[in-house]
Amino acid sequence: MEQLQKIMIEEAQVLGNSIIKADSFLNHQLNVKLFNQMGQAFRDYFQTPIDKIVTCEASGIGLACIVAQYFDCNVVFAKKENSSLMVEDYYTEKVFSYTKQRESLFRIDKRFIHPSERILIIDDFLANGEALNGMISIVEQAKATVVGIGIAIEKGFQDGGERIRAHGYDLKSLVIVDRIENNELVFREDVVTNV
Amino acid sequence: MEQLQKIMIEEAQVLGNSIIKADSFLNHQLNVKLFNQMGQAFRDYFQTPIDKIVTCEASGIGLACIVAQYFDCNVVFAKKENSSLMVEDYYTEKVFSYTKQRESLFRIDKRFIHPSERILIIDDFLANGEALNGMISIVEQAKATVVGIGIAIEKGFQDGGERIRAHGYDLKSLVIVDRIENNELVFREDVVTNV
Repeated sequence: MEQLQKIMIEEAQVLGNSIIKADSFLNHQLNVKLFNQMGQAFRDYFQTPIDKIVTCEASGIGLACIVAQYFDCNVVFAKKENSSLMVEDYYTEKVFSYTKQRESLFRIDKRFIHPSERILIIDDFLANGEALNGMISIVEQAKATVVGIGIAIEKGFQDGGERIRAHGYDLKSLVIVDRIENNELVFREDVVTNV
Repeated sequence: MEQLQKIMIEEAQVLGNSIIKADSFLNHQLNVKLFNQMGQAFRDYFQTPIDKIVTCEASGIGLACIVAQYFDCNVVFAKKENSSLMVEDYYTEKVFSYTKQRESLFRIDKRFIHPSERILIIDDFLANGEALNGMISIVEQAKATVVGIGIAIEKGFQDGGERIRAHGYDLKSLVIVDRIENNELVFREDVVTNV
């Protein structure tokens, strides 16, 4: 997605060989016009009915809400708890965050995902895929179906995306960063769309 | 706001004399159509230019992003840290959460609020006003101006709203719950608008 690549080149901060900070448009300050363009791009790609969007707190929530407008559905976000307390009213999954170097518990109230619902998972970043695997597990515990996964920025040099595609999920990343070279982002060209 | 009152009567859970759970539409599952109606209601009330919306993670983010579309601006959300680590690149404020019974540190990167910007603060709930005071403090540290505060649900039986209005802020709550009587919500009628 050209606009997202453009704003990444202009605004993202690159630290070392693997850290991409998108604080000015995606993770702290939120560029709502860009989110709408991303919503349209996901709508163009996932041309299928969606009952609900699942995301996880905190950065995914804003993007998910804007994207939901393009699919005419509600959002439910996985809450993150530091404790490993199990609560029977919730679907839960342990998720390890490499960024924060700690495990947290994702949970979604059982009332908010129903069997046979068609779910689109939306998240801002995909790296190792830990958070995404947690959300997929929760959707499948609920006997709902993951019909698609929409990611803003995939780090193609980490293996989360590859593993999730190998499992047969329809994963669309708007931008895939192939590698970081001399402090610059190198994009995977085959995912560029002229949106 | 009639639709919000209606959905609260149908879906909110009332626990004891003071707890209102809005998990099915505002705090966990997010009713994006309702958020758009709320955005329109805030736009009808705050008829003034807004440069940026400030909110705090996590529940406020989705609402803030939808509302931002009605003011044609971006959102920045205060991140919550459990530590009291001070970081010089951030405006920070300590905020005590009565719900969680712990203090956290709100922080916003100094790059994302500029002096003289006109800020609208958006949040889902207002009770004691701790989170709201934290956000006001951060905006004012940045020498920006709080031109309005938009809240979905104010608990009128707690004193946050009263204190903030007494300081002269233009605070608009779409619904004010005056009290809880026999497990039922009693609304303050003078804030009903026929949106």
